[in-house]
Amino acid sequence: MAKEKKVEQITDMEVDFAQWFTDICVKAELVDYSGIKGLFILRPYGYAIWENITAFLDRRFKETGHENVSMPLLIPESLLQKEKDHVEGFAPECAWVTVGGSEELPERLCIRPTSETLFCEHWSHVVHSWRDLPMKYNQWCSVLRWEKTTRPFLRGREFLWQEGHTLHATEQEAVEETEQMLEIYAECYEKLLAMPVVKGIKTEKEKFAGAERTYCVECMMHDRKGLQAATSHYFGNGFTKAFDITFTDKNNQAVNPYQTSWGFTTRSIGGLIMTHGDNSGLVLPPRVAPVQLVVIPIAQHKPGVTEKAEEIAAALKNAGIRVKTDLSDQSPGWKFAQYEMKGIPLRLEIGPKDIENGQCVLVRRDTGEKVFTPLEGIAESVNKLLDAVHEGLYEKAKKNLDDNITSANSLDEAAEIIRTKGGFVKTMWCGDEACELKFKEVAGVSSRCMPFEQEKLGEVCACCGRPADKMVIWGVAY
Amino acid sequence: MAKEKKVEQITDMEVDFAQWFTDICVKAELVDYSGIKGLFILRPYGYAIWENITAFLDRRFKETGHENVSMPLLIPESLLQKEKDHVEGFAPECAWVTVGGSEELPERLCIRPTSETLFCEHWSHVVHSWRDLPMKYNQWCSVLRWEKTTRPFLRGREFLWQEGHTLHATEQEAVEETEQMLEIYAECYEKLLAMPVVKGIKTEKEKFAGAERTYCVECMMHDRKGLQAATSHYFGNGFTKAFDITFTDKNNQAVNPYQTSWGFTTRSIGGLIMTHGDNSGLVLPPRVAPVQLVVIPIAQHKPGVTEKAEEIAAALKNAGIRVKTDLSDQSPGWKFAQYEMKGIPLRLEIGPKDIENGQCVLVRRDTGEKVFTPLEGIAESVNKLLDAVHEGLYEKAKKNLDDNITSANSLDEAAEIIRTKGGFVKTMWCGDEACELKFKEVAGVSSRCMPFEQEKLGEVCACCGRPADKMVIWGVAY
Repeated sequence: MAKEKKVEQITDMEVDFAQWFTDICVKAELVDYSGIKGLFILRPYGYAIWENITAFLDRRFKETGHENVSMPLLIPESLLQKEKDHVEGFAPECAWVTVGGSEELPERLCIRPTSETLFCEHWSHVVHSWRDLPMKYNQWCSVLRWEKTTRPFLRGREFLWQEGHTLHATEQEAVEETEQMLEIYAECYEKLLAMPVVKGIKTEKEKFAGAERTYCVECMMHDRKGLQAATSHYFGNGFTKAFDITFTDKNNQAVNPYQTSWGFTTRSIGGLIMTHGDNSGLVLPPRVAPVQLVVIPIAQHKPGVTEKAEEIAAALKNAGIRVKTDLSDQSPGWKFAQYEMKGIPLRLEIGPKDIENGQCVLVRRDTGEKVFTPLEGIAESVNKLLDAVHEGLYEKAKKNLDDNITSANSLDEAAEIIRTKGGFVKTMWCGDEACELKFKEVAGVSSRCMPFEQEKLGEVCACCGRPADKMVIWGVAY
Repeated sequence: MAKEKKVEQITDMEVDFAQWFTDICVKAELVDYSGIKGLFILRPYGYAIWENITAFLDRRFKETGHENVSMPLLIPESLLQKEKDHVEGFAPECAWVTVGGSEELPERLCIRPTSETLFCEHWSHVVHSWRDLPMKYNQWCSVLRWEKTTRPFLRGREFLWQEGHTLHATEQEAVEETEQMLEIYAECYEKLLAMPVVKGIKTEKEKFAGAERTYCVECMMHDRKGLQAATSHYFGNGFTKAFDITFTDKNNQAVNPYQTSWGFTTRSIGGLIMTHGDNSGLVLPPRVAPVQLVVIPIAQHKPGVTEKAEEIAAALKNAGIRVKTDLSDQSPGWKFAQYEMKGIPLRLEIGPKDIENGQCVLVRRDTGEKVFTPLEGIAESVNKLLDAVHEGLYEKAKKNLDDNITSANSLDEAAEIIRTKGGFVKTMWCGDEACELKFKEVAGVSSRCMPFEQEKLGEVCACCGRPADKMVIWGVAY
């Protein structure tokens, strides 16, 4: 058997984490760079991961009563300006269309950075009575934000996402919607992507432009930096007032409805890479992996080997497992390295001796563990092992998260922890933005969120010493 | 039972076909107008039709070995200019981004009108060897073309589509791909949308900008005008030379590969409306209908009626039928009109007497035919009836197409047919663009295509009298 070839082209993450990340994106054939900074090409393998994510979320959105729509790509400048906080947040990073065909346009049109204003304008046409509510809409599309620094998946000037937008008769119903969608995001991270999350609420400073309250799920990467993984916003009726959306309630009164929006982007794939990947390349959790198992014949020139490989692959496919069989003339060693790089959760090796013994070798991508497995009942064994890989990846990431949230009683202590150990620091906080800015200045961290699961670490703010009843998690984030 | 309320808001198609079309688009809640001319909002009901179309096509694309990708939204002006014919065709209708954030861009970026140039640039990075071919890619997205006249579905400045782009080692393989995708489009029209098509090849004048040959499927609408329903292009190696894409073949020679592209858009929904709709509103073929059957209880205040309605709905859902049950307090008459307007293929009425007799009433949207149907085995009966509705709609549209293709031996005869009867005219044609222009000038028609199924209508061109061996179909088109 050919010796396993090392995937030497990938930079070790301990040497240069950023380069390791970029190497995986490019060499596992997830993305290619286009001619425009920050606009990335999602290649078939990268897009297939996104398709599995969208399938999971779209099913959950529909199960919870949401409908898909398609809104225009462009927003007139005057429309974007209708809600003050919102335009302040987004105008600086808009891309503007000024020419259509051969004519200068009378008004600049911005490529949507997000579509609250478009949904609100539409609702102002179609919402009349309490019978029309709730409106629970979603769209799958790309948006543009003209960022200065860009990286594949993590920060693109264009990125793919879904944006949900809903309208409700009551504040309570809107808040429940906002929370429900956050739970679905958490479920997607934990059940599909094997990534543990911290659920919480953003501070005033970090909330979405125009929102009353932003909920979020935050994750921790290999390098102990944070990733804002998804957000869900409660708007109150600020936009609906600005856009003059009213409905006649059951008492025949004209009322402004309450609004939410929530988004999940391709940055989740960046998170996936930085949570599970290793120095051999990508490591994909089985439920999101485009290929869950690769069959590699050993000594495939020997009679019966390729036939057996194909027979096993067919049996696994039949059981609903996503299988690839590589019968090419590359060496087994090359194939091992190639599919390790691509993060395929399981490798199945089958050679003449295995056939004789009615078994095969299953190799886990996450641990490298090899298990001789009887061919009898192979689909069931593989399904069990795929679940084990999912659990293993989740537990490992959970340990990384739990081990690296450290509590601190003072800003200095927090700064020291960040400097030496990294990860997240949790402290009490008075609620004053001045203290939040001080954390940034002294410890170099921003508030990730006020977790739903609050702990009472003390009575006073770690920064100013005034009374405090909120626990905040701080960290360096992507 | 309440008398059936007429949907009087819809203009009769005989009075004003264009207004009838717009009325259906708006009143069946398929679209809403945005603040920008030609950018339409696809509302949930309109988008759900598109989702059913995309599901059908996406499945067929994957079965035939294609992979989805995501290309950037923007194309630098210099990249668009790389292929001469292509830029000439598209530059006049591009929307241009000139400002990003607060800065004037050094080079204008056009919002993709189509993505040949982006795919070619990407391939120039990633194609090296014959082992890399074929590349069979597709993307689902929207594109922008800054048209002067716009109409929902038929002509939008922005529209949704898929664009397939493939690269092949040989000319023959590329041509086979082009033809295969046309067959899939024809299948989608005939099997899913119940719309018969004429398959053919575009003349040089009508082919896609930059293509060597454009294949198309053409349909005929109620008003006997044509609709170019989808196109598939064979490019030869013109773009691959312009973009310097080469691969090393098995003889170690650097060769330019051969290319195709093919697209299917939301204009298909416009075609659907104008093929099957009537003066009561939309008529949806069952396989693409978001709701295939609506259950309407009669005398629903009587004991047991709503329970029975829900029981039947559950049984039908269980059999995979897309069902809606309307238990609202609107009158049955209002409900009948409402769901006729929305084109739901079947209505199931169930009242106390029906329950007593162990039956229900099924009403076909396309013919208005009512059938008393036993509740025993209802799912099977409904499935049979849905198939019958599909067949009925297809046959009716096929008759409209067949009855309205008239052959002519001279340009004057063709003009007279178009003036009096309308529809398509078929004639022999010498292949000279001058004659094609004459048809436009005298009869007001353009060439729809040279059908695959050629007939020998004579020996000479209907326009100039010179020898002719091609039969062309001419018509007025959307």
